[in-house]
Amino acid sequence: MNHKSIIYILGKILQIEALFLMLPLIVSIIYREDDFISFLITIAATGIIGTVISLKKPPKSSFYAREGFVMVALGWLVMSVMGALPFVINGDIPDFTDAFFETVSGFTTTGSSILTDVEHLSHASLFWRSLTHWIGGMGVFVFMLAIMPMTGASNMHLMRSESPGPEVGKLVPRLRDTAKILYRLYFALSVLMLIILVATGMDGFDAVTITFGTAGTGGFAIKNTSIASYTACQQIIISVFMILFGINFNFFYFLTFGKSLMEAFRMEEIRVYLLIIAGSVAAIMINAGSMFTSVFDGFVKSLFQVSSIITTTGFGTTDFDLWPSFSKSILVCLMFIGACAGSTGGGIKVSRITILFKVFHKELAHFIHPRLVRNIHMNGRVLKDETVDGVKVYMGAYLIIFVISVLFISIEGHDPVTNFTAVAATMNNIGPGLAKVGPACNFSFFSAPSKYVLMFDMLAGRLELYPMLLLFAPTTWRDK
Amino acid sequence: MNHKSIIYILGKILQIEALFLMLPLIVSIIYREDDFISFLITIAATGIIGTVISLKKPPKSSFYAREGFVMVALGWLVMSVMGALPFVINGDIPDFTDAFFETVSGFTTTGSSILTDVEHLSHASLFWRSLTHWIGGMGVFVFMLAIMPMTGASNMHLMRSESPGPEVGKLVPRLRDTAKILYRLYFALSVLMLIILVATGMDGFDAVTITFGTAGTGGFAIKNTSIASYTACQQIIISVFMILFGINFNFFYFLTFGKSLMEAFRMEEIRVYLLIIAGSVAAIMINAGSMFTSVFDGFVKSLFQVSSIITTTGFGTTDFDLWPSFSKSILVCLMFIGACAGSTGGGIKVSRITILFKVFHKELAHFIHPRLVRNIHMNGRVLKDETVDGVKVYMGAYLIIFVISVLFISIEGHDPVTNFTAVAATMNNIGPGLAKVGPACNFSFFSAPSKYVLMFDMLAGRLELYPMLLLFAPTTWRDK
Repeated sequence: MNHKSIIYILGKILQIEALFLMLPLIVSIIYREDDFISFLITIAATGIIGTVISLKKPPKSSFYAREGFVMVALGWLVMSVMGALPFVINGDIPDFTDAFFETVSGFTTTGSSILTDVEHLSHASLFWRSLTHWIGGMGVFVFMLAIMPMTGASNMHLMRSESPGPEVGKLVPRLRDTAKILYRLYFALSVLMLIILVATGMDGFDAVTITFGTAGTGGFAIKNTSIASYTACQQIIISVFMILFGINFNFFYFLTFGKSLMEAFRMEEIRVYLLIIAGSVAAIMINAGSMFTSVFDGFVKSLFQVSSIITTTGFGTTDFDLWPSFSKSILVCLMFIGACAGSTGGGIKVSRITILFKVFHKELAHFIHPRLVRNIHMNGRVLKDETVDGVKVYMGAYLIIFVISVLFISIEGHDPVTNFTAVAATMNNIGPGLAKVGPACNFSFFSAPSKYVLMFDMLAGRLELYPMLLLFAPTTWRDK
Repeated sequence: MNHKSIIYILGKILQIEALFLMLPLIVSIIYREDDFISFLITIAATGIIGTVISLKKPPKSSFYAREGFVMVALGWLVMSVMGALPFVINGDIPDFTDAFFETVSGFTTTGSSILTDVEHLSHASLFWRSLTHWIGGMGVFVFMLAIMPMTGASNMHLMRSESPGPEVGKLVPRLRDTAKILYRLYFALSVLMLIILVATGMDGFDAVTITFGTAGTGGFAIKNTSIASYTACQQIIISVFMILFGINFNFFYFLTFGKSLMEAFRMEEIRVYLLIIAGSVAAIMINAGSMFTSVFDGFVKSLFQVSSIITTTGFGTTDFDLWPSFSKSILVCLMFIGACAGSTGGGIKVSRITILFKVFHKELAHFIHPRLVRNIHMNGRVLKDETVDGVKVYMGAYLIIFVISVLFISIEGHDPVTNFTAVAATMNNIGPGLAKVGPACNFSFFSAPSKYVLMFDMLAGRLELYPMLLLFAPTTWRDK
């Protein structure tokens, strides 16, 4: 284990976090709130620790995949610990476990909250809470790679551990340029959304925080009723942007920088993703028809909820826990499917599900015509065996973590739907589940041990399982 | 598609079924019940159809794997249709869909019932209902292979489609001898159980039907309270035999015929299976402690329920739907794990779960030490890649069928726990689930379409997915 490299990189991550923390500090000053001091203390602590531990550049700059994974896992943990401090210091969330839960939920773009009343939070707290979504959405290591001159092929390991999906490709030969392109697209799309929301007459502060939550597919809102109080037009705009941020960013790259429209529209995952959304909206509009005041109301609410769940954002405009069983089952399925690989969304990812179906179809065909050997195609190209195997193992690891988490949570004695959907909602980085963790409820009633299990699930989900598993595997730390 | 072979074999299966139907006919005559006529009609119909369609021996006796799978799927369907007739004719279950459901549930050793009051059934009906478990447990095709002189290596395909587990091996070089050995062991173990139950003073009819239900890991009982009215001693005996019938029959073979005790105790699956049982019993005794009158009562009830669920039998001595969440979560996990491969039990099978954990562990080790290439061992031998791949694809297919079934069932609007556990209980061939399909309830309230979905799940679960999938795959029937 290359400890020196790990500590150095962690230092850099903390420095970046200190920079980001300047933004809520400014908000605090603008709104003349007294809690600016809590942000000042956190910035000082984070900046100083970060600078001290990254003073000495490690001689050996290359590292293995496992070190990359561990770095990312540790980075996200450390970031969340420091990010929780403002809430504890300014008293908005006095309990550390709760503040830590809220920050992990923020960075992992989950959006599960322990707060019963978000409206009493200071503007700076609300801003920081939403900003963690934006930072976590594209990833802080990707950000680091984009802004810092770092050499070495091993940085690819960092990118791979933080970027969601079964295959991580560089858009351009240089990794730093890829990271820059991703952040530029992310920034541009966010600004576009902000402008449109403000144009509809939305308050500036609301527009900024909602944009953060949408872009990162996070789901923290600044109203207790989430997005329900905004106009239908604004809700439709937010739905469309949730869907856009759930799309593989390669698509936007091909569309803009890459000049290859063909390549963009050949992306099978996006077609499947849009088809699932359309099908689910239609099915819910029919099944839950009696819950809506009109067809238009049904369309707006179904579209919003489907987009919110499949992209794993978790915003709400209605209490879908009251919808009929079939509609709820669809939503639970969408929770697991998740958004596209290479987007800011969570879940298993549409591409993995697509590959799983193709593998299954191929195997069935193999039974029928044993001599037929067929490759699995995706986007017009043959899928590497490595990728297919990766998906299968991912599913296995996913299942194991899922089941163990549900078992653990159920010790507390809540009903099965609460236990099941609490884990589903955190591991897929969605936010709300059903029953006691439904859209009208929150996660505060869980005991501290359960909260830590759910935090593990959020991080495991966001970082695609392996970094968190490696962090806790004893052999990782045994140097041979 | 070798239609002639398929029809010939189906005829033979019907002939065998007609033979088995003689037994309830005898019961009917012994108890002087008037419904003997319904069995007589069924025997005549089954026997005549079976004989007519198997008159002409097909010239080409070999067939492909897919034909074997389709044969088995069709065989089980036809057998269930004919097996349902006595219930419809004698009026015990006048509705055909319900009678069909009950018979599929019987043959697949599921034990989910649509009956609210089993005690009003005739002795012959009760006997036939339980006998279907015994027939389905070891498999009717295995029986056919054991008693009929059939040549050709393709018969292995029949055995493979009906025998549960990731690897099907012949115990002895000749397939027919393997089938004979399996049925001899099955018969011997059943007789042993019957003798012991009768020795405890149990009524003969009760002892026979309970033995059928236990041996086949089925779960139909002849009392409305299932097994609750029997003595603690009898309940423990049934628990032990449920556990025994959930063990890979290779174990008993090694123990008796094979003279290889070493080989028997090297079977990892059995160790894991017994450990899971012990662990679950202990956990439930602690967690549900307040539900029991004494530690002994807790032990008897926990042991019985754990054995009943993991072996996918489904007998009950208590309403476990009233147990606390954690205990129920354990039972739901056991539902999926299921018994050992090569036993009469259902579920995913302990060996598949073990292999899944090993694959996962290997992959994690590969991340940590990328240069380390390790094989996966089971029972002291290296597992073939083929087997490992088979397990992965099985899990994928399993998940897909499971999710689609739950979605379909949820259209009816029942609560999520009912929908989820109804599919879990049928697809894993257990019997009761939780909530509306809990041990104190039954499946009669489902609509006919939902019942057919659940029947599909029972057959898919019993025949390990592929036969039923192939039967409904359009390409199977497209001859090139």
